[in-house]
Amino acid sequence: MHTFNIAPIADEALHAALLHQINQKTKPLGALGRLETLALQIGLVQQAEHPALRQPGMLVFAADHGVVEEGVSPYPQAVTSQMVLNFLNGGAAINVFARQHGFSLSVVDSGVNAIFEPHPQLIDAKIAMGTANFLHQPAMTDDQCAQAIQRGAQIARNVISQGCNVLALGEMGIGNTSSASCMMSLLCGLPLHQCVGRGTGLNDAGLQRKLSVLTTALQTHHVDAQNPLQVLTTFGGFEVAMMVGALLAAAEARTLLLIDGFIATSALLVAAKLYPSVMDYCVFAHCSDESGHSAMLSHLKAQPLLHLSLRLGEGTGAVLAYPLLQSSLAFLNEMASFESAGVSQSSAST
Amino acid sequence: MHTFNIAPIADEALHAALLHQINQKTKPLGALGRLETLALQIGLVQQAEHPALRQPGMLVFAADHGVVEEGVSPYPQAVTSQMVLNFLNGGAAINVFARQHGFSLSVVDSGVNAIFEPHPQLIDAKIAMGTANFLHQPAMTDDQCAQAIQRGAQIARNVISQGCNVLALGEMGIGNTSSASCMMSLLCGLPLHQCVGRGTGLNDAGLQRKLSVLTTALQTHHVDAQNPLQVLTTFGGFEVAMMVGALLAAAEARTLLLIDGFIATSALLVAAKLYPSVMDYCVFAHCSDESGHSAMLSHLKAQPLLHLSLRLGEGTGAVLAYPLLQSSLAFLNEMASFESAGVSQSSAST
Repeated sequence: MHTFNIAPIADEALHAALLHQINQKTKPLGALGRLETLALQIGLVQQAEHPALRQPGMLVFAADHGVVEEGVSPYPQAVTSQMVLNFLNGGAAINVFARQHGFSLSVVDSGVNAIFEPHPQLIDAKIAMGTANFLHQPAMTDDQCAQAIQRGAQIARNVISQGCNVLALGEMGIGNTSSASCMMSLLCGLPLHQCVGRGTGLNDAGLQRKLSVLTTALQTHHVDAQNPLQVLTTFGGFEVAMMVGALLAAAEARTLLLIDGFIATSALLVAAKLYPSVMDYCVFAHCSDESGHSAMLSHLKAQPLLHLSLRLGEGTGAVLAYPLLQSSLAFLNEMASFESAGVSQSSAST
Repeated sequence: MHTFNIAPIADEALHAALLHQINQKTKPLGALGRLETLALQIGLVQQAEHPALRQPGMLVFAADHGVVEEGVSPYPQAVTSQMVLNFLNGGAAINVFARQHGFSLSVVDSGVNAIFEPHPQLIDAKIAMGTANFLHQPAMTDDQCAQAIQRGAQIARNVISQGCNVLALGEMGIGNTSSASCMMSLLCGLPLHQCVGRGTGLNDAGLQRKLSVLTTALQTHHVDAQNPLQVLTTFGGFEVAMMVGALLAAAEARTLLLIDGFIATSALLVAAKLYPSVMDYCVFAHCSDESGHSAMLSHLKAQPLLHLSLRLGEGTGAVLAYPLLQSSLAFLNEMASFESAGVSQSSAST
């Protein structure tokens, strides 16, 4: 794999300068809570005392999964390509929320089992017509995995080079919670039953079948849990591998990352095992209702901004959290200070 | 007190029609979580299958509190009037967030201990130059309380008559967490120590003093906890009483209410004891870090949208949650249905 150069964001002098700004605003010390830590993080990411968000970008990576032939999802595989067309027609939830908050939206065909007509919002990066069924063989070859990471990185760099400095990643792929659950079990060192959930809506019998299929799959492959690329190659999806590349390239370019959902977070698990500093660039948007996501976030010591019981994927949680990022910078850049407003400070803080 | 006519929002046929719309959107059943319940609630409030939010309004009620002479806040009383000027100059947190989300913002002088020059954003509704010190006597007279409720109702009706159909209430008043804590203890039937917090930032010694002052105050007055108006008169503030009137008048006019913070929720406690149906119109925006707020919300069976560790008041939490309300209606009104998008439904749900 191509290497990435990801710098930690720590900067003592800038940290102190940002904190001083924040504490001089006309409010009790710390009273804006998470918006204060957000403003601080974004300032450090952008190496700026007056950070600003520009041209927010959303990339939705879509791919199919060989393991769906084992009946791990209540939806047919065709839904992946149908939803790609829905994205391109502007009718999905992510389209609605992206329009609301001014995100550019591109859909990446990372490996959907269908051929699409060209479309201005569609990026053709198809690795194959879906992964192999990882119940029987690794989901992809080493070469496919490396290609997917590389392609994801390029796609992120393209969006960033056009002026985007805050990037959100979403996904679509019937069966991809199965991939994410296996990867999570290995990379977080948790038993599979804590990592497997109902996905798009399995009933109890379906959940049991999914758990049983994935248990067998984990036993079949002798994967080194300390080797995140091997985990990704064996159980991942093309959309997941591309998100790994996109995350790493964006962090390398000091771009803020909005992390949403169970699948996108599983890509971050891989990215963070490879390059721990990628975490510095991540804002965790939402804790999903997919069972396992909160444990995955805990493993990453991540504190999500929203808990709205969403379990849709597509990057919806990421886009919904965006106004809070804007609010954090609005207060940093626009609020009056005690001095400028002539407001008395607390007897405790003076 | 003038009576209010507040209708429950329940409507079986409309409920079914809204739910059908929601469930036909291209997403797994229930996958948009809280946004789905929000869309449903707003539709019922507006009696519309295609609800819309118009001209969001923020009213910040400000008043002073006699009890501050007992040293229950780390800030001097003058900060109330200084912050009113800060609001009028556009420099406070609530100004920043109101601008971000297109809220009209008016500041109501409900009883600040200062005389202000006229200002287009200032509504003069001063009842007195602050409440009496409730350690020694009721905070206000029955007549003042009735006047304040009436005035708050008028102010809300004015905003609504100008086209606003979603109203957020904020407040400013050094000492008002003391009022809210006493009211909460009586109206929720909880011991005072569970209702008293650090407000704008008391240290441990200050917190002890506040608890001791409020304990004595509660013992001094023989208030009937079943009489919410007596509780409000004895321990409330003019800003709290005006918020009670504003909440009731807005619900009467079938206007959606955005509820923020410890003080605004204490006003709702009074309003809901008087007219339980007011709850139907409330969206709970944020659970504050002020100790006691989460217990107050539990008492109301309220599920706040945000948990951002804010403890600022001013209505900041309410305005920050507004984009989520917009998202809930955007998905309801703009997303494609399974049929229109040609997407297959789940085998479990068909």
